Amino acid sequence: MQPEVVAVAYRGRWEESRHYGSIAVVDGEGNLLYSRGDPERLTFLRSAAKPFQALPVVTTGAYDAFGFTLDELAVMCASHSGEDMHVARVLSVLHKIGLDEASLQCGVHTPFHKPTARRLRRAGEPIGPARNACSGKHAAMLALCRHRGWDTAGYLELGHPVQQLMLRTVAELTGYPAEAIRTGRDTCGVPVFAVPLRNMAWGYARLAGAGGPAGEQRRGIALIQEAMARYPELIAGTERYTTALLKTANGALVAKDGAEASFGVGSIPAGIGVAVKIEDGSDRALAPVVTEVLAELSLLDEGALQALSPFRSYAIKTWGGLTAGRLEAVPFFK
Amino acid sequence: MQPEVVAVAYRGRWEESRHYGSIAVVDGEGNLLYSRGDPERLTFLRSAAKPFQALPVVTTGAYDAFGFTLDELAVMCASHSGEDMHVARVLSVLHKIGLDEASLQCGVHTPFHKPTARRLRRAGEPIGPARNACSGKHAAMLALCRHRGWDTAGYLELGHPVQQLMLRTVAELTGYPAEAIRTGRDTCGVPVFAVPLRNMAWGYARLAGAGGPAGEQRRGIALIQEAMARYPELIAGTERYTTALLKTANGALVAKDGAEASFGVGSIPAGIGVAVKIEDGSDRALAPVVTEVLAELSLLDEGALQALSPFRSYAIKTWGGLTAGRLEAVPFFK
Repeated sequence: MQPEVVAVAYRGRWEESRHYGSIAVVDGEGNLLYSRGDPERLTFLRSAAKPFQALPVVTTGAYDAFGFTLDELAVMCASHSGEDMHVARVLSVLHKIGLDEASLQCGVHTPFHKPTARRLRRAGEPIGPARNACSGKHAAMLALCRHRGWDTAGYLELGHPVQQLMLRTVAELTGYPAEAIRTGRDTCGVPVFAVPLRNMAWGYARLAGAGGPAGEQRRGIALIQEAMARYPELIAGTERYTTALLKTANGALVAKDGAEASFGVGSIPAGIGVAVKIEDGSDRALAPVVTEVLAELSLLDEGALQALSPFRSYAIKTWGGLTAGRLEAVPFFK
Repeated sequence: MQPEVVAVAYRGRWEESRHYGSIAVVDGEGNLLYSRGDPERLTFLRSAAKPFQALPVVTTGAYDAFGFTLDELAVMCASHSGEDMHVARVLSVLHKIGLDEASLQCGVHTPFHKPTARRLRRAGEPIGPARNACSGKHAAMLALCRHRGWDTAGYLELGHPVQQLMLRTVAELTGYPAEAIRTGRDTCGVPVFAVPLRNMAWGYARLAGAGGPAGEQRRGIALIQEAMARYPELIAGTERYTTALLKTANGALVAKDGAEASFGVGSIPAGIGVAVKIEDGSDRALAPVVTEVLAELSLLDEGALQALSPFRSYAIKTWGGLTAGRLEAVPFFK
């Protein structure tokens, strides 16, 4: 199986560029319900693994021990835009575990939220690592280190116990053996994990509560679902697709984007998981393809589809503001 | 024929994302010498048509009538970074034809050259359309209007005589019938033209002087070759790939990039043309693929390949500066 064309950039009436991709849809037992392209494609989940990675914060007892709250759990699952609302939660997590911003080894970059970036620049305010899109995940990893008594210094490395815990958690949720998972380093420095796309979808089915989670895992999944439902703006940020999707889904979906155009969605009422990978890693095709798939699977109602229409397909504009073309997903069921 | 994988983004040792593409290599008679993917792919040349579009400036006599110079001809072929060196030439062209910056209908955007953009922002200096990457081409179109006595007001529209001249010129150079050429609107507002990739390559073979151009066309091609050889920094800008390629080629190549990842190269000593289209329109794969193809066709010497090595493949870095992966072209001859 090879990736297929999943989105097209039209110029006028003509195809100008095309994005290949793969899609997998599975139930709570990991059975493949639908697919396009190659559902076995080994796919780095990147930040689409973050909700899985936040789960041990609950299951280890760290969540209760440190008195974390749902908004803090949301930012632990986030690839956020570095807005003040995100930074406040990250600093609050660090405060509760007795650390400060300097403990974050995620690196520093200009916040994705442009008005925030502009404001900081104009004020001459320095940008710290808490503005990094992944700072919530790093704070969660540090919380696990503090809770378990592990040294925080080397927490980026795959051999560190917190990363071994991440690996085991991703293996467990995706139903793919830890020893078969391929690893690499994310832009924020920590290990990332690659599994077949259908296994990524299985993880999202489980995050949606399908497949019968038990005990602390069940409670952790319920808390992550609630965190995403109540704080969608903390999972990504202002005008971001993942935030818009979670907001319009109104608690029916769990969803998370990953760099290089991976995306996972779990439908809580349907008990299914969806995973998408755009072959070329291009962000511009991701929201249209994910929205199209969710629409065709009837996982979004009409109101949600209306709210998401600016993401489902959009005009390609000239610098003068004229419409020159469109970016559109190719229908999933041809 | 379908596009093939032409570049891979590795994370650690593993493929993370892959770019599909097509490549055509032709001689001066348009015979296909080598190809990958689909050499018949209908491809919008976008700004890779600019050197073709500058040719009528010479062949109509406008070049001599207005006393244009080689540096001005270079900026007419450019997708420039909006640096002061580019703006100076565009304003000079406009001055010679008795117009000013307000006549440019290309729209306004922040200059691609970041230090220039920063400087203008800090100084509170307004950004005019001459900073637009396509302002040289627009100035050339206005020069043709003035020379021929056409109204400048509607010069963006396909029905305007200057755009019909552009269409006929692209048809003639690429050996593809004008009536079969697909058109659309570029980001700068003017018509763009789609021809099969092998025809795009044929145009570049002709721009390299192959196929026996005669009369004024021969002189126009010679002047464009000389403009690219002497002013490579005016064709793109500081730290840009096209500029680096032209500089290291030292007069042996004509070359131009286009938006949505098209690229044309002509080798003057070899008398052949090369055209590349990255299927997904992604810039990041373009320079590695073009450099790889030119290397494998022996169109670049060792010194040039050394100078271009940062473009041929490059590290994908973490925010902390560690190497997380690489972007590499797939060898052309497997």
